[in-house]
Formats: sequence, structure tokens, C-alpha cells
Amino acid sequence: MTPVRSPIDFTALLSDRARRMNASAIREILKVTQQPDVISFAGGLPAPELFPLEEVRRAADAALTRYGSAALQYSTTEGHPPLRDWIGRQAGIPAANVQIVTGSQQGLDLLGKILISEGDTVLVEAPTYLGALQSFQPYGPRYVELPTDDGGIDVDALEALLRTTPAKLLYAVPNFQNPTGRTLDAERRRRLVELTGRYGVLVIEDDPYGQLRFSGEAAPSLYELGLEYTGDVNTNHVIYCSSFSKTLVPGLRDAWIQAAAPLIAKLVQAKQGADLHTPTLNQMIVTELLDDVLPRQIETVRQAYGERAGIMLRHISEQFPQDVEYTSPQGGMFLWVTLPQHMDSTVMLQRALTRNVAYVPGSPFFALGGGHHTLRLSYSSATPPQIERGITALGETIREALDQG
Amino acid sequence: MTPVRSPIDFTALLSDRARRMNASAIREILKVTQQPDVISFAGGLPAPELFPLEEVRRAADAALTRYGSAALQYSTTEGHPPLRDWIGRQAGIPAANVQIVTGSQQGLDLLGKILISEGDTVLVEAPTYLGALQSFQPYGPRYVELPTDDGGIDVDALEALLRTTPAKLLYAVPNFQNPTGRTLDAERRRRLVELTGRYGVLVIEDDPYGQLRFSGEAAPSLYELGLEYTGDVNTNHVIYCSSFSKTLVPGLRDAWIQAAAPLIAKLVQAKQGADLHTPTLNQMIVTELLDDVLPRQIETVRQAYGERAGIMLRHISEQFPQDVEYTSPQGGMFLWVTLPQHMDSTVMLQRALTRNVAYVPGSPFFALGGGHHTLRLSYSSATPPQIERGITALGETIREALDQG
Repeated sequence: MTPVRSPIDFTALLSDRARRMNASAIREILKVTQQPDVISFAGGLPAPELFPLEEVRRAADAALTRYGSAALQYSTTEGHPPLRDWIGRQAGIPAANVQIVTGSQQGLDLLGKILISEGDTVLVEAPTYLGALQSFQPYGPRYVELPTDDGGIDVDALEALLRTTPAKLLYAVPNFQNPTGRTLDAERRRRLVELTGRYGVLVIEDDPYGQLRFSGEAAPSLYELGLEYTGDVNTNHVIYCSSFSKTLVPGLRDAWIQAAAPLIAKLVQAKQGADLHTPTLNQMIVTELLDDVLPRQIETVRQAYGERAGIMLRHISEQFPQDVEYTSPQGGMFLWVTLPQHMDSTVMLQRALTRNVAYVPGSPFFALGGGHHTLRLSYSSATPPQIERGITALGETIREALDQG
Repeated sequence: MTPVRSPIDFTALLSDRARRMNASAIREILKVTQQPDVISFAGGLPAPELFPLEEVRRAADAALTRYGSAALQYSTTEGHPPLRDWIGRQAGIPAANVQIVTGSQQGLDLLGKILISEGDTVLVEAPTYLGALQSFQPYGPRYVELPTDDGGIDVDALEALLRTTPAKLLYAVPNFQNPTGRTLDAERRRRLVELTGRYGVLVIEDDPYGQLRFSGEAAPSLYELGLEYTGDVNTNHVIYCSSFSKTLVPGLRDAWIQAAAPLIAKLVQAKQGADLHTPTLNQMIVTELLDDVLPRQIETVRQAYGERAGIMLRHISEQFPQDVEYTSPQGGMFLWVTLPQHMDSTVMLQRALTRNVAYVPGSPFFALGGGHHTLRLSYSSATPPQIERGITALGETIREALDQG
């Protein structure tokens, strides 16, 4: 066979869906910020030094002993029964309403897949979690942004919007939101659940950080309020997603969805086509850790992140110019900085890198653009001395940028 | 909050995509056939007694020691670099052209996602792998079936079709196909690659079983022929999918895609939205097993399946009525039975179950329906005595059904 002259045009053969996908802006930035000397507040990585490494080693061993070859065989799409049982018990719902997924990211992808038709209106916070936009984007949603403040989504604005705009779905991260670190007020949660219920809008509650509260008091989840509002697990219009990535370890990719039975049935079909099932051994490893290691680990992570957030906030208050605003998270991994309106955090990142400090510009977190003067800082994986040096360097960067206009 | 009267109508809120999904016909059948006394030739499970359980245990331990917390942290979307390197070396291509996926099923889903727009023509074998249909179906393909015989796809028919029908994609399992066990002839492979190249049709070569040949001689892969035909890894119109599920173990969900750079770039974006990355530890475990355990394991599985296929074929030839046809696979896990035209294998399954033997009816493997008188038998996970008893019972079932019309 002789090579042909006209090579195939791969780009022309991509689906409409593929044309809607983009390289993650964050991912490209993270590559730049991974030089060894850089103190990075950019990534959203859990602190690896806190991982229960030996416990995972023993759990893998125990699971292989307990289940033998079944730990390495194909398994059910719905997930490892003891893991589903445990999650169901914690949530006070039947295991049948729990679907195990390969990381929360898969949960968002499968929900987008079964729910979003091209042109469907999806309500998102401004700003919102970038990974959700990436999951939903291929399915062709029309995003409408919900204004937010320190109490989370502005529910008056939501009500005004729902009066005029038919929406399919509302996506929210109510606890210690990625990227802002903000938490949705308890009273607003009730109104949000009532409003969406009344207008027939599904809610995806993404809650990877809820367990990592280090100050303030927990509010009920939207899912719990949905149960209360609708009266039944199988009519609840709130879908709940959570994960073991932030409480145990992310690399095993074990997460779950709680939803009404008709949605679970469709999720199972979608997951069969997407990856058949979440790796068997990984589900068994997590199951071995649930009773003993998980609660201890949550306590460890909570304390560490609380300490780091406190240090970061103290240094910010000392080092940043007065007209820079920032959030004070009660948990999770992130806080959010708002520079004076005329500044551009993407441009400023180059200056920051010359001082060996990195962050993520805020723009990519806005579904409809904007937020050029905002940025996200992660305190989860930097040590206290790194936080001090990094925030000092960032303060200098901001002042320099302010001075030079 | 008081429960509302009109619960949300979940079905009305599903996407167009979700409406195209169906519960797997096989999955429902497998539930019926999993009663303890039933000898099941229905599932497509690798033989669990051959799994390298202790080797996986040691590999998990070694990976956790070698990589520490990095084995449990988030990792790159493209995959674990040493694993990609090894696959690239085996295939004689750069690691950059290898994408790790969470089981071949995810590979098919991501390929469907980035390639199939609604209404795109996808050419499939008749019959074809049901799991591929499940992955592609949500993306709205228009299937056109390619006739097949004992040498695989009829390439004359393919040529006639391509002259009149613009197609986006051809999906094929050239080695020991699921469900038929047939292998595509070497000469037909060349013509298939030339024809699809000339007409600008992408080829997805799904090859989970290629290493499991127990008789006959291996033909070059479509991917290799595509390299030869196009002259370059980045213009090759053949995309290759394979997996460690059938050679090592399925439960870790480690598989890969080889493709031209523009497709890899899109696959990375799609995978970011789908599950961020394949579980880190799982990729490291497989990497630990590549040099030593994998070749030994392939030899073990090959011999066992060769022996089981031989026993099944011998008993079929002794027990089945003369007008029943069946394939003689040279590898893999399946063979295909064609009953007389007037028989219905779905109806007959009930009779078979009363004799405690199970199989999968052939119909679901046809994209456009038909094949009511065909069925798939798997010999991979039954012991030789089970095969003897099961085939005897199935022979009786067929004769009884024939007698009673």
C-alpha cells in the first residue's frame, strides 16, 4: 500500500458536541505553575501528606482477602452493595437510591447526559465550578447565571428569573463553593428548594466539601430539604452528588449520586455505556475504611484546612491592599479574591509567577464570561510557611500591579 | 414545608439522548441466569480462578511503596506516563498517541462522544458488540449493518456501500469477535483499511481479545495496516482500542486508545469532563505487572480458553442436531450458534433454563434487529465438566424445541 496524498481531516469529522468542548483553561495554567520553586495556590489538590496511605494499603489487602477474585472481576453497574448500603444509611434513604460513580466528575457527566438536551436552560451560580461546565458543555446547555453574594445564590433573583424563564436544571455547590468558598444560607436553601419544586426545576446539589467544615454551623442539605418538601425519596427534585475524594483520597475515584428511582434507572443505563462500573477493588477499599478511618480522616483534614485557611486569611488581611476583597470560608479548600474592577487577574498572573506564586484567574469560572478582576486561592495543599511566603509575594504583586495601573 | 400535590415528572425532564438509551437486554437476561444451579454460557466473564490475585496484591503494595501518596492523588487525564510509554513501545508509536481510559467501554463512549453527531452514519458488523451499540446509541447514530461471514466483514459489500453511502465511522472487532468468535481475514483487512482510507471513513478497531489466540496465525491489526497505508501515526484513520480486562483482570478498569494526535487532543478534553482521569493506583498496579506477570498470564488464559473452546466444540458436534450451525473461534471467549431459521432463541431460553443451562439470544447484537434464531455461547468461565453437562442439556433443549416446532 502506498501512502495517500490527502490525509484525513480529523477536525472536519468531529461531532457538533466535540466542537463545544474546550481545553480546560485551568489545566493549561496549572502546567505553567508546576515549576518546582513556585508556591501554588492554583490547584485544587487535597493535602497529600494527610492521605491515610498505610490504611489504604491494609484495606486493599483486606479486600483482596475478603473477596478474592471477586475483587478483580466485573461487578454491578449500580455499585458495591455494602458501599451503597452505608451511604443509604447515612442519608436515611434506601440503597436503591444510591448510584456509585467514578469520581463526582462522572456523576456530573452522567447527569448532563441524561438531562440536558441541546438548548435546555441550566441555571448556574456566577461564578460556578468549572468542572461542571466542562461536563455539561458537550450536551449543549444554555446557561443562565444566578447572581451570588456572601450568602450564596440570591434567591430573590432566582424567583424573578423563574417567573419568566423556563429552566430544566439548577446546578449549585451550597457548601464552601468551588471557587468562592461561600456557603448558601440556611433560609435561602429552603426558598431555593421550594421555588425549584414549585417551578418543576431539577436541582443538582454538588457537595464534595460538606464534611470539611471548620467553623460555623452546618445547614441542612438541599437534598434533605427536598425530601421534606416533596415528602418522598422518589419524588425529590433535588439530586445529591458527593465523593470520597476530599475526605479520603481522590486517586481511587469513588463518588456517588443520591436521586429518585426514575433518575437512578436512567443513570444506570448511562453508566453501562460510559464505563460499565466503577472499579471493583476501589469500591471495596473505600468500604473497608468507612467505619474507622473515614471519621478520623475527616477530623484530620478539617483541622488542617481550618488552620491553613486561618493563616492565609491573617496574612491576606496584613498584606493585601485595602480595596482588595476576599471571602472567609467556613470549610473546604478555597477562597475568592476580588481585585479593584480595573485590574486583570490573568495579566497579573505573569507578574505573580516572576515572584514564584501562582493562583487561578477567576474568569473561567463564569459560564458567560466576566470576572476578569477575580481570582481563586487554594489553601489545602500548601504548608503554613509556604502560605506566609506566597501571600506576601502575592500582596507585593497586587500592590505593584496597582501602582503601575 | 408541606408536601406538594403534583410530583415532578422525571420522565418528561429526560434529555433526547436519554430517551435513546435502553436497559441492556443482556443484563436483564444475566439476572435470570445467575441462579446457583444454572450452568451459564451467557455472561462474558473472564475465568476468575485464573486471576493473578497474589500478584495484584503485591503490585498494589509495591505501587503504594514506590509512589507513596502520589498513588492516591489526582493524576493526569492522559494517563500514568510509564503505562503510556509501555503501550507506545509495544505498538511502535509515541506515548503521546496513547490515551488511558477507564475500561474499553469508556473508550467507546468517548469516541462516540467526540465523533458521532446526530444522524451520522456508523457502519457496524451484523452482528456486532452490544456494548458498542450502548455507548454510541445516546449520540444518535444512524446504523448501517455490514454483512459478515466466517471471514468477517464482507468487503465487497462494504465497497458497494461506500460508493453510495457517506459514512462517518466503521466499528469492528476483527479478532475473535464478540459475539461470533469470528476473525477478519488478513486480505480483507487490507482492503477494509484501503477502502475506508479512500472514502475518508474513520475506523474504530476494538481489540480486547487479540492476545488470546489459541490456534491459527495472527493477522496484522487494522491499526498497523492504517499506519502502513497513511504513512504516519498522526494521519492514521484507524483508531485502536484495547484493554487489560481480558488478559489481566477486568475489575481494575484499565484500557487504552491509540489514535492520531488531533483525536487524542479531543479525547483528553472529553475525558476531563467524563471522569478527570482513570484511577491512579489502578494504572500503577497494571504497570507493575506488565513485564513479568502479563505475558505469563496471557499464556495461561490462552491455554485454558483453547482447552475450553475445544471441549465445547467437541460436545456441540456430538450433541447438537445436524442443521444447527456454529462458529469455530481461534481465540477469545465466544462462539455463535445459528439455529434453523424458524426457531426463536429468546423463546427457547425458557426451555433451556428449565434444564439449568443459559446462553444469550443473538437478537440484541444486531443494530437493526433480526437474528432471532441465533445465540451466543461463552466458554471462558465454565469448567470442562460444566461445559459437557451444559452442552448436553442445550442439545436436548434444541432437539425438544425442534420436535415441538
